[in-house]
Amino acid sequence: MLGKLNHVAIAVPDLERASALYRDTLGACVSRPQALPEHGVTVVFVELDNTKVELLEPLGEGSPIAGFLSKNPDGGMHHICYEVADIIAARDRLKADGARILGDGEPKTGAHGKPVLFLHPKDFAGTLVELEQV
Amino acid sequence: MLGKLNHVAIAVPDLERASALYRDTLGACVSRPQALPEHGVTVVFVELDNTKVELLEPLGEGSPIAGFLSKNPDGGMHHICYEVADIIAARDRLKADGARILGDGEPKTGAHGKPVLFLHPKDFAGTLVELEQV
Repeated sequence: MLGKLNHVAIAVPDLERASALYRDTLGACVSRPQALPEHGVTVVFVELDNTKVELLEPLGEGSPIAGFLSKNPDGGMHHICYEVADIIAARDRLKADGARILGDGEPKTGAHGKPVLFLHPKDFAGTLVELEQV
Repeated sequence: MLGKLNHVAIAVPDLERASALYRDTLGACVSRPQALPEHGVTVVFVELDNTKVELLEPLGEGSPIAGFLSKNPDGGMHHICYEVADIIAARDRLKADGARILGDGEPKTGAHGKPVLFLHPKDFAGTLVELEQV
C-alpha cells in the first residue's frame, strides 16, 4: 500500500533561520517560503535527491503546529508523509484494522493540492502519519 | 552537500508490534529484525520506493534510544539521516559554521557499516541529524 516517502515535516520556530541552516550550513537546495494560510503554516521545501523535507512555521491563529512548538520550542520532526495510490482504499483498510483516522475520516485537500489523511500517532508508534494520494 | 535522505529512524517500544503495523496495516515491505548489539538496537527496515524507515527497539543496557523512549513511551521519530559524499569535508564545514558534532567529533562506523556523525539537535531545529558517508 505504501509508495514513496513524500516528505518529512519539521516544525520550526523561525523559518528564516531554519532555511539558512539547511541552505548555508547543510548545503541543501531550499525553496522560497510559501505562505499557506488555509493550512496555518508557511513552508520551505528542502529538495533532496530522492525526497524532500518540509520546514513548517506557524501562520495565523490556531496553526496546527502551534501546540507541537509549545511543547518543542526548538522545533522537531512533526510528521512523516507516505504516498498511496488510492486514499479511500487505504483509509478503508486502515479502519478495518482498527487504526484511527484524524478528523472526520474523509480526505482533505493537503498542502500540495492532493487528497490527504492524517493517522492517529497513538496507533503508529507515536508518529503522526500523513497519507497523500498521488 | 546533502545527498539523499538515507532513512528516518523511528524508536519503538515493541518492534514486533511496530513491524506488524507497517507490514500488515500499512502494507509495506519490512525486513526481519536485525540485532545490532554494538549499536544498542534491534532494527527492522521498512523499504519504501525511494528511501527507508528504520524501526529501532532498544537492545541491552545503555541503549542510545532508551532515554528517548522513556520520554516518549509510545515511540516517535528519533532521527533523520542524510547522505554526504565526504563526511570529513561535511564535518569541517559544519564546525566552521558553529554546529556541534556529538561525541568526540570523529566519524564512527554506523549501523550500515559506513562512517557516520550525529549533529546536535539544538543546532538543527530540534532534530537529531545523522550524516552518513555513502
